[in-house]
Amino acid sequence: MRANDKLKQYSIAEVINKKVHGRTRKENAPLTLFWTGSALELNAKGSELWIEVESDYDMYEPWISIVINGAWVSRQMIQAGRYWICVFRGMNDQMVKNVRIIKDVQAMSGDMDCKLQIHAVKFDGDFLPLEDKPYKIEFIGDSITSGEGIFGAKPEEDWISMWFGAVENYTALTAEALNADYQVISQSGWGVLTSWDNNPHGNIPDIYDKVCGLLQGEKNEALGAWQKHDFNSWQPDIIVVNLGTNDNGAFHSPEWVEEATGVIYKQRLNEDGSYNEEDLKAFERAAENFLGMLRGYNPRAQIVWTYGMIGQDMMPAIYRAVDSYQKNTQDKKVSVFQLPNTTEQTVGARSHPGRLAHEKTAAQLADYLKELLS
Amino acid sequence: MRANDKLKQYSIAEVINKKVHGRTRKENAPLTLFWTGSALELNAKGSELWIEVESDYDMYEPWISIVINGAWVSRQMIQAGRYWICVFRGMNDQMVKNVRIIKDVQAMSGDMDCKLQIHAVKFDGDFLPLEDKPYKIEFIGDSITSGEGIFGAKPEEDWISMWFGAVENYTALTAEALNADYQVISQSGWGVLTSWDNNPHGNIPDIYDKVCGLLQGEKNEALGAWQKHDFNSWQPDIIVVNLGTNDNGAFHSPEWVEEATGVIYKQRLNEDGSYNEEDLKAFERAAENFLGMLRGYNPRAQIVWTYGMIGQDMMPAIYRAVDSYQKNTQDKKVSVFQLPNTTEQTVGARSHPGRLAHEKTAAQLADYLKELLS
Amino acid sequence: MRANDKLKQYSIAEVINKKVHGRTRKENAPLTLFWTGSALELNAKGSELWIEVESDYDMYEPWISIVINGAWVSRQMIQAGRYWICVFRGMNDQMVKNVRIIKDVQAMSGDMDCKLQIHAVKFDGDFLPLEDKPYKIEFIGDSITSGEGIFGAKPEEDWISMWFGAVENYTALTAEALNADYQVISQSGWGVLTSWDNNPHGNIPDIYDKVCGLLQGEKNEALGAWQKHDFNSWQPDIIVVNLGTNDNGAFHSPEWVEEATGVIYKQRLNEDGSYNEEDLKAFERAAENFLGMLRGYNPRAQIVWTYGMIGQDMMPAIYRAVDSYQKNTQDKKVSVFQLPNTTEQTVGARSHPGRLAHEKTAAQLADYLKELLS
Amino acid sequence: MRANDKLKQYSIAEVINKKVHGRTRKENAPLTLFWTGSALELNAKGSELWIEVESDYDMYEPWISIVINGAWVSRQMIQAGRYWICVFRGMNDQMVKNVRIIKDVQAMSGDMDCKLQIHAVKFDGDFLPLEDKPYKIEFIGDSITSGEGIFGAKPEEDWISMWFGAVENYTALTAEALNADYQVISQSGWGVLTSWDNNPHGNIPDIYDKVCGLLQGEKNEALGAWQKHDFNSWQPDIIVVNLGTNDNGAFHSPEWVEEATGVIYKQRLNEDGSYNEEDLKAFERAAENFLGMLRGYNPRAQIVWTYGMIGQDMMPAIYRAVDSYQKNTQDKKVSVFQLPNTTEQTVGARSHPGRLAHEKTAAQLADYLKELLS
Repeated sequence: MRANDKLKQYSIAEVINKKVHGRTRKENAPLTLFWTGSALELNAKGSELWIEVESDYDMYEPWISIVINGAWVSRQMIQAGRYWICVFRGMNDQMVKNVRIIKDVQAMSGDMDCKLQIHAVKFDGDFLPLEDKPYKIEFIGDSITSGEGIFGAKPEEDWISMWFGAVENYTALTAEALNADYQVISQSGWGVLTSWDNNPHGNIPDIYDKVCGLLQGEKNEALGAWQKHDFNSWQPDIIVVNLGTNDNGAFHSPEWVEEATGVIYKQRLNEDGSYNEEDLKAFERAAENFLGMLRGYNPRAQIVWTYGMIGQDMMPAIYRAVDSYQKNTQDKKVSVFQLPNTTEQTVGARSHPGRLAHEKTAAQLADYLKELLS
Repeated sequence: MRANDKLKQYSIAEVINKKVHGRTRKENAPLTLFWTGSALELNAKGSELWIEVESDYDMYEPWISIVINGAWVSRQMIQAGRYWICVFRGMNDQMVKNVRIIKDVQAMSGDMDCKLQIHAVKFDGDFLPLEDKPYKIEFIGDSITSGEGIFGAKPEEDWISMWFGAVENYTALTAEALNADYQVISQSGWGVLTSWDNNPHGNIPDIYDKVCGLLQGEKNEALGAWQKHDFNSWQPDIIVVNLGTNDNGAFHSPEWVEEATGVIYKQRLNEDGSYNEEDLKAFERAAENFLGMLRGYNPRAQIVWTYGMIGQDMMPAIYRAVDSYQKNTQDKKVSVFQLPNTTEQTVGARSHPGRLAHEKTAAQLADYLKELLS
Repeated sequence: MRANDKLKQYSIAEVINKKVHGRTRKENAPLTLFWTGSALELNAKGSELWIEVESDYDMYEPWISIVINGAWVSRQMIQAGRYWICVFRGMNDQMVKNVRIIKDVQAMSGDMDCKLQIHAVKFDGDFLPLEDKPYKIEFIGDSITSGEGIFGAKPEEDWISMWFGAVENYTALTAEALNADYQVISQSGWGVLTSWDNNPHGNIPDIYDKVCGLLQGEKNEALGAWQKHDFNSWQPDIIVVNLGTNDNGAFHSPEWVEEATGVIYKQRLNEDGSYNEEDLKAFERAAENFLGMLRGYNPRAQIVWTYGMIGQDMMPAIYRAVDSYQKNTQDKKVSVFQLPNTTEQTVGARSHPGRLAHEKTAAQLADYLKELLS
Repeated sequence: MRANDKLKQYSIAEVINKKVHGRTRKENAPLTLFWTGSALELNAKGSELWIEVESDYDMYEPWISIVINGAWVSRQMIQAGRYWICVFRGMNDQMVKNVRIIKDVQAMSGDMDCKLQIHAVKFDGDFLPLEDKPYKIEFIGDSITSGEGIFGAKPEEDWISMWFGAVENYTALTAEALNADYQVISQSGWGVLTSWDNNPHGNIPDIYDKVCGLLQGEKNEALGAWQKHDFNSWQPDIIVVNLGTNDNGAFHSPEWVEEATGVIYKQRLNEDGSYNEEDLKAFERAAENFLGMLRGYNPRAQIVWTYGMIGQDMMPAIYRAVDSYQKNTQDKKVSVFQLPNTTEQTVGARSHPGRLAHEKTAAQLADYLKELLS
């Protein structure tokens, strides 16, 4: 192998001209990428670029994708340990490459050891400044928004990191269509009130104000996951909430028992299969409260509650929740948008929306958001 | 990281149930992958699989893609050295995964150090037998067939490994449409008579009978690249030749001077821009002779000369060559098929056919080949 | 012209084996086609078929389309008068042709003279029995459902019959996808409470129980347009309501004054551009009442309120109306479904949904309805 | 029906501002439309337009399509007799409408009575001048070029006018993509040497220099069909020849016996199924001679021999013919272009290319022709 003598190593802190996508702690050296779609972006004028990553996990290893000048070139599992990855080499050193190193898997609430960090870079050129895009979008969701099932053959059923994807996700495609920066807050199985299995702790609102509040354990605490998020640092123009699918699932799943207390949690169905009114109301109140929380932290954002990629049974309740919120607040910048249901043609792995489903969603959602922005 | 105590290491020679795609030497341990699209295929019943790769290069590093149950999950640069790559982990150990580790870059005639090998695997299950597909196809071509430009943004101009691709290549797509195994013999810039820059050594026929005869240097010799290929080991049903684009380029490029002898080589144009008749004849004779060579080594194959993805100026000469070959041999199993030209909509990086161009080509070529096979 | 001596003339009443689509009077000889998409369907085993039509109009002439064995072969303006049209000729007399003569334009509330009738047929073969399709769908809507703008270049602005279309309409495409018979009740400019220009008479509920109650004048009365519709004759499995677009328009249009009484009608906006709450409530009550009326006449139908092809401002109000209806009735077979908005790419003539918009709507709506039927 | 008092009648000769597409006699009043795709084009500023047509036939009635401002609005059988057809009514009289009345069926060599004429127009406005498009294309072909099978369900087998189409034909689509005027010379079953059933009179070259030389009988003679065509009146930039499909068919069809002389005609196959060399040579000579004839009449046209929409067995012979022609003439403006074969997905009625096949052909052919024009 021909050595490149011109490579110089810089800690990530030394790289001033960089852009970090996705919530992370302020003191970001080494740079921890928590959420799916979170990324390090560079404008790199030089011929060869390496990054030093560090990864750990108990079960769910991280994956990254590499995008150069907007074109996807690599996707790989990040094995445990600390090592160097070559991003590109042999390129014209006079051309500036826009590079994004993207976390391709969601934050893993079920794996206290899961970690992905970027410590340093080696480069033989200069990093140039990056400009913000004209808009900012925040996506809040569950497995759909985490891109579960974008990768993998349709029959796949294992719940593993490999099937998740951030690049062909509707979040990335929508943001690209709108020329927007974006970040994602999402967790498979979670809802606005409860997780799919009636666990009341599996709700996004409880962790929304933290950097990555759904991670557990001292290691994650040390990484800053539990820090209060600085909302002033990134105020979205649009917030897309895509929750409700697991809240619906809870009605059709067995009860969940809190071990410590023995308390039983269950969203109930009536005997005729319809939703128990009280429990549905609880969902609606949770949704309404979440809207209030979102508005509190994001005063100028258009908030769009989207729903429908895996069934649309909760849509009436979502409309009621938004309606009630608007009546009580006179907040005009909140709306509901139905997403196209996933079909046999568009399904991916694990019975989740596949690439075609994400493309269809992004096309329709982008059309809708463009009108809100105009 | 949770250790998997059940992993056992096997040298590649110990893995009996495997399928190797693409020409390589007989004594294939470690397994050297030379050509683009060459691959190790396994039916792996177990939960976690690793491969040990070894790579080297002076300039042009190898890349691999990983395909699981037909779905593309990973693509990565293989850095110099010998190390382990995890193919999958955490999967249901009772399910059989069809796994292909695919060389995503062509053999590099310009880099004597370029090497990709698989030494060993670690696995916690059993490798099951693999069946041959009903058909075998051999593709012979240049940069187009090497998938140059499938990856990368349209403005990219660097000549680097990163922009090559085997998985969304028309070769892979055509083979998939026909449910066929396939192998590729291809080299950017080469022709049937001469390379794009009039170098008479840049021709595929001269190296066709070797395992990978275009590689140079003692290292490659030691890897078996210059061994005579055993044609009995893999007799294709169809041979697709996609050559002529660089033979055409030679007419429009400066002369090439053999350093050792001072001999000048140049495919000439007439003053009015038309092809010099004598030089065009030389191309036709080379094409005709190559057909004879192909028939000699592949007695039962349908041979299809395809052309047209980057212009179709040589098509009349190709038809004349095939016509003359057929007149002289009465060989009925030879034909010509025009491929769709690349357009602004379908172009990829480096002004080469992009993914859409490869998809269009594969759709039309597969339709044509299906008729030949029926 | 070679004469066909075998042609025999039958009055439409003499043709026993026929199927009439769309509401019309019981004593249907001559057969009057009122609504868009209404049709005469025949299974004709013979070589040559003619129909005798009669048409009149003051301003808005009728058009028909002819579909043979599911393929669209003709579309033509029907000029005033009574004359014969050849449907097909020169065909194999041993083959059965499924033929549909389809009214391609809506009933025209603004033209008291508008009329389309089929008096008789000439045929040289036998009419065979027709079977019902497994499902029946009724579509209720406005100009969108009337297919206004499916024909014509995008800049067209004239309000004329020529731009309407029934065959590439989402109603026809959805019914075909579900293998369903269908009928349409629709009128450009009308709503559930009021027309786009605040005319309170431009509402579908008021005329829903008549054969074609929106037509005016003695001529139409004589044709049976004001007869009470016999709901027992055709009970739909699904009713798709696509109203609300003009009710929304009324808020943004000038007031309407009833000439006779001087009474002023206006759906009001607040000063800040939001909907006047009282007027919006009136819309919601009208929608809720219409659901009750629909249920009364169609006891077993799934009722789906669809909306969104030209904006979705009324969607929250529609959800509230449906919600209130369900609370008051416990009727489970009512739901709301958002249709894809029309975009620059999918728009047709007169700023209305074009063919692509209707295709997109039909694809999504059919997917949704399939689930309701399963 | 409300009468339009402003309508004035003009004989077609009185309409100075008109454009006639397709070959016809010079003294074109009444205007006879012979070939498929031939048309009367007007820029009509007014509210209501009628045309007076006259039609006759023994077996194969004419059909027309009407295109307004580029949008297809009507297609109808023209019954025998002379009568008025309303093209549009009720439109804004201040807007100019571009109107094309298009013959939707080929000239019918097998029906001596077949005729379509336009005698007069009624209009309430002014006809404005029309400009020529930047290019002119002539298409020469057989049933494919006549659009046989564009209309009708796939199982249709009757050979009738109804299944032919000019508007979604690859000729119209290619011309539109190139912004070109075009005309068509085509006849189902015919070839360059012989028809599909070995009739030696079924060849286009014999009739190429007449206005519409394939029509027979005194009536057609009187209409000017046998007049020598004035090639100076319309010199194409491109000639697309799409012949060879029926010449191939002749090899696989029974012999044809000239009744008058008893002479037998047959393109022979060898016993092994290959083409008889002498007969294939006759085809090649016919093709070569036709190229010479085309060049004689069209000195500046790019001539492109296209082939392949229904098989491509004759392609080598076509290449040889073009090659031989070029060797003998040094004519550089002749080339060959392979068209995409029709597949199960793209087939139309009567086992002929359907709309999708014509769209695919037009897309690829237009790309190729654009390069020739640049």
